[in-house]
Amino acid sequence: MSSCSGCSSSGAGQPGAEHKSSAKQNIQDALICSTLDKIRYKLFIMSGKGGVGKSSVTVNTAAALAARGYKVGILDVDIHGPSVPNLLGVTALGIEADRGGLLNPVQVNENLWLVSMDSLLKDKDTAVLWRGPKKTAAIRQFVSDVNWGDLDFLLIDSPPGTGDEHMTVLKTIPEALCVVVTTPQEISLADVRKAINFLQYANANVLGVVENMSGLACPHCGGEITLFKKGGGKELAERYGLEFLGSVPLDPATVVAADMGVPVVMLEGESHAKTGFLNLADAIVTALDRSLEAISGSHG
Amino acid sequence: MSSCSGCSSSGAGQPGAEHKSSAKQNIQDALICSTLDKIRYKLFIMSGKGGVGKSSVTVNTAAALAARGYKVGILDVDIHGPSVPNLLGVTALGIEADRGGLLNPVQVNENLWLVSMDSLLKDKDTAVLWRGPKKTAAIRQFVSDVNWGDLDFLLIDSPPGTGDEHMTVLKTIPEALCVVVTTPQEISLADVRKAINFLQYANANVLGVVENMSGLACPHCGGEITLFKKGGGKELAERYGLEFLGSVPLDPATVVAADMGVPVVMLEGESHAKTGFLNLADAIVTALDRSLEAISGSHG
Repeated sequence: MSSCSGCSSSGAGQPGAEHKSSAKQNIQDALICSTLDKIRYKLFIMSGKGGVGKSSVTVNTAAALAARGYKVGILDVDIHGPSVPNLLGVTALGIEADRGGLLNPVQVNENLWLVSMDSLLKDKDTAVLWRGPKKTAAIRQFVSDVNWGDLDFLLIDSPPGTGDEHMTVLKTIPEALCVVVTTPQEISLADVRKAINFLQYANANVLGVVENMSGLACPHCGGEITLFKKGGGKELAERYGLEFLGSVPLDPATVVAADMGVPVVMLEGESHAKTGFLNLADAIVTALDRSLEAISGSHG
Repeated sequence: MSSCSGCSSSGAGQPGAEHKSSAKQNIQDALICSTLDKIRYKLFIMSGKGGVGKSSVTVNTAAALAARGYKVGILDVDIHGPSVPNLLGVTALGIEADRGGLLNPVQVNENLWLVSMDSLLKDKDTAVLWRGPKKTAAIRQFVSDVNWGDLDFLLIDSPPGTGDEHMTVLKTIPEALCVVVTTPQEISLADVRKAINFLQYANANVLGVVENMSGLACPHCGGEITLFKKGGGKELAERYGLEFLGSVPLDPATVVAADMGVPVVMLEGESHAKTGFLNLADAIVTALDRSLEAISGSHG
């Protein structure tokens, strides 16, 4: 399956498209095409608002897909607050070049690989003070110069909002399918509506909406606490004619797993969150099967 | 109290300082100095990670200070996801110019005023696709061209992380005192350490650390649920030698209030969150009284 027709050299109509071109950029465009051609699905995990658990959704969906036998890569482009390595317990992020000069991603398990902006940081606790153009260059390089190999899925974890990073990802990987993560309360939905309008403006493909932090069962009495309310994500998906991919409840197990550096779906034993994330991964596969024809139609 | 010694024209050593200057910029620098001279305390509310309730802390602290009789302004510089207007129930954000050509902030109550990046948006649900330099210009204008008048406090609500907006605010208002908001779990603290290192690098003044979403009492059985753990913010403050300003628990009342567009401190009746925020505002006043000498020393 070739996706080159959608590659960045044909980025007309994409936001922020600059009509400068150079030989160096053309070579990088070709490298980007060649990398993307070997990856079946590119999922761009987005949220309007920060702190809705976007990185948690990325990591747990990726781990669930890897557990189902798919080859999965995670590209973490959140330079200001990359939390994916922490969530996966990956501390050594130094990426090494292979013989062809390509960089190798960090292997997390048999089916899961990671490249994070964090690997560019010398000190984990140091803030990165990059402005837009430098971030754009780094994101392009993490596609063009990384030996991702043959993958079923590449999940791209973005910062919250709709900034330079998002424009760059959508311009570099126009065939990416966006998964929009929200929490149920109105204050988060307001930001998600902006993100969806941004995606429509950018002609991006939206796979669907996920409602995270959807209810909580009291671990003492079992009573339901709708801390951030419930159902807002589903309503929003219906309003915009988007697919609702599922909801994942709040669960102290998710926080404990995160601080241990293990995705909750990889913990032994059952938990509300684990069940929610596994169902979500399956719903994503089903939605992709359904939209495969549409994608083949536009990029075949 | 003059703070002109710290104004942006003397921005050497600040991050991103560009040594271009023009007559137009000098005039704006003078306007910024004149605005800031009439504002006693500038509090820059920051967080490393999104979704830790930073805007909720801003709005409730501001409302609590206003309820104590102080004159308070809120400057919301989060162009990609401004939620302050929603939290205050302010829908009409059109700012009008007075006779002198200055823009008037929106008056929320007797003691509380607001200027939000939201006022630049035609449609609430439309994403803003501004890159760095345009954001910098807007932030500077929201200080130089707004008729803030005499205020006891200006609270500046920032986006999460350490991006263009933060560099611009610290360069424009170098005397700002930073209030760093975190949630207790490690994944949030990791990002906060980056923010604190950024502030140290930028020679910013840090007033202290707030722990938000600190525990939750089950509304059914009263049992304590430490959903995002507890105590991490206090430990972090101690480790960095920073003042711990207080903790505010998770509370369904905060979410209900937010979706109503009323700060929880302004609701009738008691709630865990209301008590937490009122105590926080008082702790901030106490911390400011203590640090007043240090500030006078460096800017007098």
